[in-house]
Parts: sequence; C-alpha cells; structure tokens
Amino acid sequence: MQEYRTQVRVRYAETDQMSVVYHANYLVWMEVGRVEACRERGFEYRDMELQDGILLAVTEVNCRYLSPARYDDEVTIVTTIAEATPRRVTFHYTMLCGDRKLATGESKHIFLNREMRPARIPAKYFPLFGIAQ
Amino acid sequence: MQEYRTQVRVRYAETDQMSVVYHANYLVWMEVGRVEACRERGFEYRDMELQDGILLAVTEVNCRYLSPARYDDEVTIVTTIAEATPRRVTFHYTMLCGDRKLATGESKHIFLNREMRPARIPAKYFPLFGIAQ
Amino acid sequence: MQEYRTQVRVRYAETDQMSVVYHANYLVWMEVGRVEACRERGFEYRDMELQDGILLAVTEVNCRYLSPARYDDEVTIVTTIAEATPRRVTFHYTMLCGDRKLATGESKHIFLNREMRPARIPAKYFPLFGIAQ
Amino acid sequence: MQEYRTQVRVRYAETDQMSVVYHANYLVWMEVGRVEACRERGFEYRDMELQDGILLAVTEVNCRYLSPARYDDEVTIVTTIAEATPRRVTFHYTMLCGDRKLATGESKHIFLNREMRPARIPAKYFPLFGIAQ
Repeated sequence: MQEYRTQVRVRYAETDQMSVVYHANYLVWMEVGRVEACRERGFEYRDMELQDGILLAVTEVNCRYLSPARYDDEVTIVTTIAEATPRRVTFHYTMLCGDRKLATGESKHIFLNREMRPARIPAKYFPLFGIAQ
Repeated sequence: MQEYRTQVRVRYAETDQMSVVYHANYLVWMEVGRVEACRERGFEYRDMELQDGILLAVTEVNCRYLSPARYDDEVTIVTTIAEATPRRVTFHYTMLCGDRKLATGESKHIFLNREMRPARIPAKYFPLFGIAQ
Repeated sequence: MQEYRTQVRVRYAETDQMSVVYHANYLVWMEVGRVEACRERGFEYRDMELQDGILLAVTEVNCRYLSPARYDDEVTIVTTIAEATPRRVTFHYTMLCGDRKLATGESKHIFLNREMRPARIPAKYFPLFGIAQ
Repeated sequence: MQEYRTQVRVRYAETDQMSVVYHANYLVWMEVGRVEACRERGFEYRDMELQDGILLAVTEVNCRYLSPARYDDEVTIVTTIAEATPRRVTFHYTMLCGDRKLATGESKHIFLNREMRPARIPAKYFPLFGIAQ
C-alpha cells in the first residue's frame, strides 16, 4: 500500500495547558495528510469539490494516542488509502516525530454531491483512488 | 449605549501551554457576544444569512489583553453596538471574569450579499441595529 | 448507567465551507460533556488537576457522524461513564440536536501525575467515578 | 526593516460557512510568522521558553482584512520586528496570496518570567531582537 508523507510543525495554538497538543488537533493533521496524499496522487481535493461538486464527508474517525506531540515538533503524517469504492474511502494515518510514533488513526468517508446526498464519484477519479474500472 | 451580556466557560481546547487561553480564542468569544447581542435585540443572525443572504464580514478586529483567562473560568462578554449604518457596523466588547477585566476588543464589519459584494441591509433590520430610518 | 446532559450552541468558528460543523470540533464538545458530567457528579476536573496533580489524558477517541450539525444549532451532549478503574476511565457520548442524533463517540483516558506518568487516582475520587472501594 | 517570509496552506478546518478563512485564524498565522522570524534570526522561541523561562505574552493584536483567503490557498506571511526593547516587542505582518494582499496585522507583546510577571530578556537575546546593547 502506497504511503504519502507530509509534515506539519506544531503551532502554539495547538497546545493545551498539559503542554502537549490538544487531542482534537490530530484530526486536523489527518485532514492535511489526506489532502496532500490526494495531491501526490495527481489531483487537488479543492478542484474535486469546486469543479465536480463532490464532497468528501467524514462518517467516522478514530485516533489512538501513543506519545504526546509538543510545541514546535515537526510531525510527519504518513497517509495510506486503505480502501476505496466509487462511494466511499478509508484513510489510515500514522503520525511520527522523528522515530517516535505519536498516534495512529483512521477516517472513513462517503462522497456527497452538492445537495449533500450520497454520490458516486466520476470514473475519472477511479485510478486516483486506486479503484478498479 | 445598551449592553448585552452572555457567558462562555473556558474549554480545555482553548488553553495553551502557557496555561492561559490562547489569544485568538477571544475573537471567537466576541463572535459569540455579537450573535447573542443580535438575538437579544430580536433577530437571529442565522436567519439574516439564510433568508436575506446578508453576511456580516469582518473587516477589522482588535483586542487588548489585560488579565489572562484560565481553564474553566466563566467569562462574561459584554457587547455593545458602537456604530451602525445600512452598510457597516462596529461592535465593542469587554470580557470579564467576575470583576476582573480580561480584555477589551472591537470588531468592524461590512454587510455583504450572497455574491460577497458590499450591500445595504434591508430596512427591516434598521431598528435592530439602531439605525435611524 | 447515569446520563449527564449539557448543551453547546454551534459557533460560526466551528463551521467549515461545507456549511456544517467541522468534524474535529465534536471532540471538543465531548470534552465539554465529560467536564460537565464530572461537575454534576460533584467534582471539578480543574481542581483534580490543580490540587491533586491528576491529569486525564486521552488515549483513544472515536466518533461516528450521523447527521450534520449546523451553525447556531443547540447541541445536547449526553455523557455516560462507561467504565472506570483507579487507573483509567471510558466515556460514551451521544450528540443530539432536538431528536436528531448527530453523532456518537467514545473517549478512553488514563490518569497521569504531574510528571506525566500513569497514576492511580486517590481513593476520594472512587465514588465520583463509580469505582468500588 | 528586515522581512521574514513563511508560508502556510489553508486547511479545511480553517474555513467557515462563508467559504473563506474564519477571521480568528489569521492570528494563528501571525504566530507562525513570528516564530519563523525568530528562527531565521537565529533562535528558537521554544528554547527561550524552555531554557530561559521567558514567555512572549500577547498584550494587543489587531488585524485588517482586505481580501478573503480560501481553502487550499498558499498564504505567505511577511513578518517584521517593528520595535523592541528588553521588556516588549511589536511585530508587523502582511499576509499575501500571490500578489493579492489578504490582511495586515500587528501584535504587541511583553516578556514574562515563569511566574507570569513582566521581565527583561537576558542580554544574549538583544541582537536577535535588534535591541542596542
């Protein structure tokens, strides 16, 4: 399974008074990870939304926190497309600081049209998500 | 000038590693303050946006931080409409924790239509913002 | 299992360009839910942290999104303590807008001391978490 | 006055239902700008806090919004140190998307010690902030 790597640096805004990153912010990093994974696969999520009116709605997310991220850490987000059909896609994530594993996560999504109803993505996107034609 | 008061309780998510509220979150509280001020004046900002397609865009904001807000504090936001015309409005805010003044702020707004162009608000909103007919 | 209910109103800051609440913000609401559940059970999470140096660190979180929350919605967070030992606690959450179920979630936590090491909570907290003495 | 440039890409989490970046997030970008400006001047803000116990507390911030930033835009933050003494510092910011000016801002800070009391920074930091010895 192909891995896509992107980096974020921890912002002061993302810390909390425990002096670690507030746990909800890892979900934002997962978003950064999957958008960059899309870009590396050759398409811009923004265009899919703007041009084809396809939205990628989150239906489920989970995250397991293993070691805290701290202010100014450089976090690597490793993203894989775990499963995809014309109607839904699942991403897996591992978040690292150097060799230290910070967290692992998963997000499940369905595709929606502009009316916010479940939709199939156009066939041109199949190869980008690794869906057999 | 009439004052409108609303309360928020500081969330853990809003703190940073200085063990105080991260400064950008005060702008979110100002948003809570002005929406509740609108509600007390008899209209829902949500409806203005949904029904009349009028958006209240921020053109300038400032905030002076006097004393830090901390986790779980009950913060009172005192909001006043400092100035209003059919095209723009200015709100003033004082944020308090009990008697302790946390911050003062100001936000300036213009009204936009659905195409994001400057717009005049319908006359029915004049009394709500205290604009002479 | 006893349920604790608290309410939040959706802030503009919490929406995204899909015109629904950005999914990570549900985790912040869960935090509000468990802090208020603690308060209703008779203790302040803030004091546990300040006085006894006990931190409630998140080890895992998940959320299933069923129906979108929108700007200005009043969201009810129903929190239950699903399981607790002197070293760990699990909370369950249901988020509602009126009768409409928005999401369900779960968070798992361990207790840490000031040195960020796993810790047992003092016995005085056992009844508050429903732990047998 | 020397300018320091850094870039952020707009996250979905940073947009709101107006389909633009929620205004409070510009303050987070300013934080990114000043931390990177410090790094380019040869010191890590993180170390100043950890090693010397010097905190950079915000006393005032303002932002003027000129043109909206949108999802996935690459935003350049241009930061300058406008004024500095051993006790306080002011940063100026211009935020750009290509040639388009998004916003200008300013933040004023005082230095605090670990007890959150106003402090003078050690002389070794003078050249870094451009303070005459």
